[in-house]
Amino acid sequence: MTRSREPAGDDRLYFDDLQVGQRFSSATHVVDAEEIKAFARQFDPQPFHLDHEKAKGTLFGGLAASGWHTAAITMRLQVESGLPLAGGIVGAGGEISWPRPTRPGDALRVVSEIEEIVPSRSRPDRGTVKVRSETRNQRDEVVQVLTAKLVVPRRATAAAQS
Amino acid sequence: MTRSREPAGDDRLYFDDLQVGQRFSSATHVVDAEEIKAFARQFDPQPFHLDHEKAKGTLFGGLAASGWHTAAITMRLQVESGLPLAGGIVGAGGEISWPRPTRPGDALRVVSEIEEIVPSRSRPDRGTVKVRSETRNQRDEVVQVLTAKLVVPRRATAAAQS
Repeated sequence: MTRSREPAGDDRLYFDDLQVGQRFSSATHVVDAEEIKAFARQFDPQPFHLDHEKAKGTLFGGLAASGWHTAAITMRLQVESGLPLAGGIVGAGGEISWPRPTRPGDALRVVSEIEEIVPSRSRPDRGTVKVRSETRNQRDEVVQVLTAKLVVPRRATAAAQS
Repeated sequence: MTRSREPAGDDRLYFDDLQVGQRFSSATHVVDAEEIKAFARQFDPQPFHLDHEKAKGTLFGGLAASGWHTAAITMRLQVESGLPLAGGIVGAGGEISWPRPTRPGDALRVVSEIEEIVPSRSRPDRGTVKVRSETRNQRDEVVQVLTAKLVVPRRATAAAQS
């Protein structure tokens, strides 16, 4: 996994630093067949994620990563280089889709955009941010879309003022 | 991971065997702290998933599994003992939420219910099934809700008739 940036505390963004339309781009991770099979053995042991030959006769037409593997790789990219949020990346949930599978050799990266910013009514120290993240391969094809609701802390000063 | 059942080809359910309201229940998997940290090191390296002490001062108040780890464990339970679908479990996407975190020692199981059944207009050999799956701990508290759209093959005979 490529580490392009590890933001220190001061570089990280608080709720108050974010705005709708703001975009972020992660580093790239190249997925290999061994990695696809290792994840599948542990979490999604189905023929189309485990075996090149057996995968040919399935809906996937060849070895494909588990969607949950694509989601996990996406999270790693977001944590290490994608979304430099204060307090880390804490999600309450969201919508996920896999328009096409991740294949061996795919170079994945994540492009994110802030879609909504909602201060908490009950908790002046935080807010909720809706982020749409596309995970794209080396041909710029989208392999995953995740629209997630994240909990982001406010700056101490901003919280004290509100 | 407990393997309670590995359905053979004939036991597996086709699109035509499913009905709205049908319920399925998986085996149980007990999650330990080492497993939580190992997943986090690989895919979600944040303090609240990696370290008991550091997790105490965070939103989680103690070590918690990555939501993607809960999702991956849920998938394993579904594949091995939860949803005996012909063609395997192939998801196009869905909605996911984590009402509370998975903690070390939690015994997780998945309870699923078929919510919608939609034959494909363009492909007589398959259909889409909406399944709501709750992942519950040993106190019957819900740690994850996933409402997924799955692609399920029709029986050859049914497809030929339609």
